[in-house]
Amino acid sequence: MSDPVICGVDFDDFVISMEEFHGYRSPGILFGGLMIEASLHELGDTPYLNVVTETVVCLPDAVQLLTPCTIGNGFLQMIDWGKFALTCYDRLSLSGVRVWLNPDALGGYPLVRQWFERSSHKKEKILFEALAAEILVAAKEAISQRPVHLHRSLKESQSVPTGRCPGCGESYPLHLGPACPACGDQAYYFYQAPTKQATRD
Amino acid sequence: MSDPVICGVDFDDFVISMEEFHGYRSPGILFGGLMIEASLHELGDTPYLNVVTETVVCLPDAVQLLTPCTIGNGFLQMIDWGKFALTCYDRLSLSGVRVWLNPDALGGYPLVRQWFERSSHKKEKILFEALAAEILVAAKEAISQRPVHLHRSLKESQSVPTGRCPGCGESYPLHLGPACPACGDQAYYFYQAPTKQATRD
Repeated sequence: MSDPVICGVDFDDFVISMEEFHGYRSPGILFGGLMIEASLHELGDTPYLNVVTETVVCLPDAVQLLTPCTIGNGFLQMIDWGKFALTCYDRLSLSGVRVWLNPDALGGYPLVRQWFERSSHKKEKILFEALAAEILVAAKEAISQRPVHLHRSLKESQSVPTGRCPGCGESYPLHLGPACPACGDQAYYFYQAPTKQATRD
Repeated sequence: MSDPVICGVDFDDFVISMEEFHGYRSPGILFGGLMIEASLHELGDTPYLNVVTETVVCLPDAVQLLTPCTIGNGFLQMIDWGKFALTCYDRLSLSGVRVWLNPDALGGYPLVRQWFERSSHKKEKILFEALAAEILVAAKEAISQRPVHLHRSLKESQSVPTGRCPGCGESYPLHLGPACPACGDQAYYFYQAPTKQATRD
C-alpha cells in the first residue's frame, strides 16, 4: 500500500506536523484528519469554509493543521460537548457535512476501540504506529457522515461596542455588564504585585 | 534598528507564519506576540507552561504560533471576555504573569489607537507595515503586566465517564444529562439526508 495522503498532506508529513504543533503523535488528530477529509470530499467545493468541532480535545488541532480555519481567525468554532464529531460547512450557504466516529463500527478494530473507549488507560499505552495503521483501515467503516444545514452561522461577524471597565480601566464588551467579568467577581486569578510596564531590551 | 525577534522568532518569519496559519498579517497577532514575550520574560523558566487568553480573537493564534500551547492539546485555554489580555502560567505552581494592552498608553500611537478602538472601520484600512512599525515601538509603553496566582488550573486533566446517547447512539459525557446536547435540543444543525459511511478511494 502506498503511503496515504490526508487532505493533500502525505501521512509522514502530517505526523511530523502534528508532533510540531500539538506536541506529540496523536491518534485523535489522525482520526480527525480522516474525518475532515471525508467531510470535505462529500461537501465539494466550499468557497467560505468554516468548521465546527463538537469537542475541544484533539479535533480542533486537526482542523488547524489541515484547513485554513483556526480558532483565532474565527473560521473554526468549538462546542464543548465532548463528542468526537465535526461539521465542515459553507458559512454563506450554511450547508455542510457532519462526520463522526461510529462506535458500533469498531468491532473489528480492537486498538481503535481501546483508544476510543480509553479502556487501556490503566494498562499499557498503545503504540502509535500500530494504532495509526488500524485507524487508516478502520476509517472507511467507522466514520459516519450526513449532510446538514446549520440554523445560523457560528462565526460572529459583528463587532460589539466596547468601553472602559470602571474597575480595572481595561477595554471590554459593554454587553457583558456594568463591569468586566474579572471585576465582576469571575476572575480566574488574583494579583500578587503592582502593575508595571513591559520592558524590551 | 535591527529586525526585532519575538519569542525567538525573527519578525519577518513571524509575519510569514501568521499569514500561513491565520490567513493574513494580523496586527492583533503581532501585538499578542509581544505580550507573550513580555509575560514569559517576567515569568522566567516555566516547566509546565499554560496560557489563557481572555478573548477568542487573534490572541489564541499568537499563542499557538509562539508557544507549545494549542487549543487541542489543552495547554491553551480561552475565556470569551472580549479583553485583549492573556496570562502565561505554570500549571503546577499556578503562578503566572498577566499582560494586557493598556488603552491609556496609546496617546502617542495614533495608528495603534485607531486599530485597537476600531475607529477606522468605516474609513480606509490601516496599512499593516505602518501599523506594525508603530506596534513595535508602542509595545514597551502599552503592554502592562502583573504577577498573578490562579485560583485553580484551567486545564481539565480528568477524563469523564462517557456512554451512548439513547437518541443518536454516539458517545458523549454522561454528566451532560440523559441525552447528548444535540439530541437534547441544542443542535446547531438539522439533517438533510440519511447517514452513510465515509468512502476513501
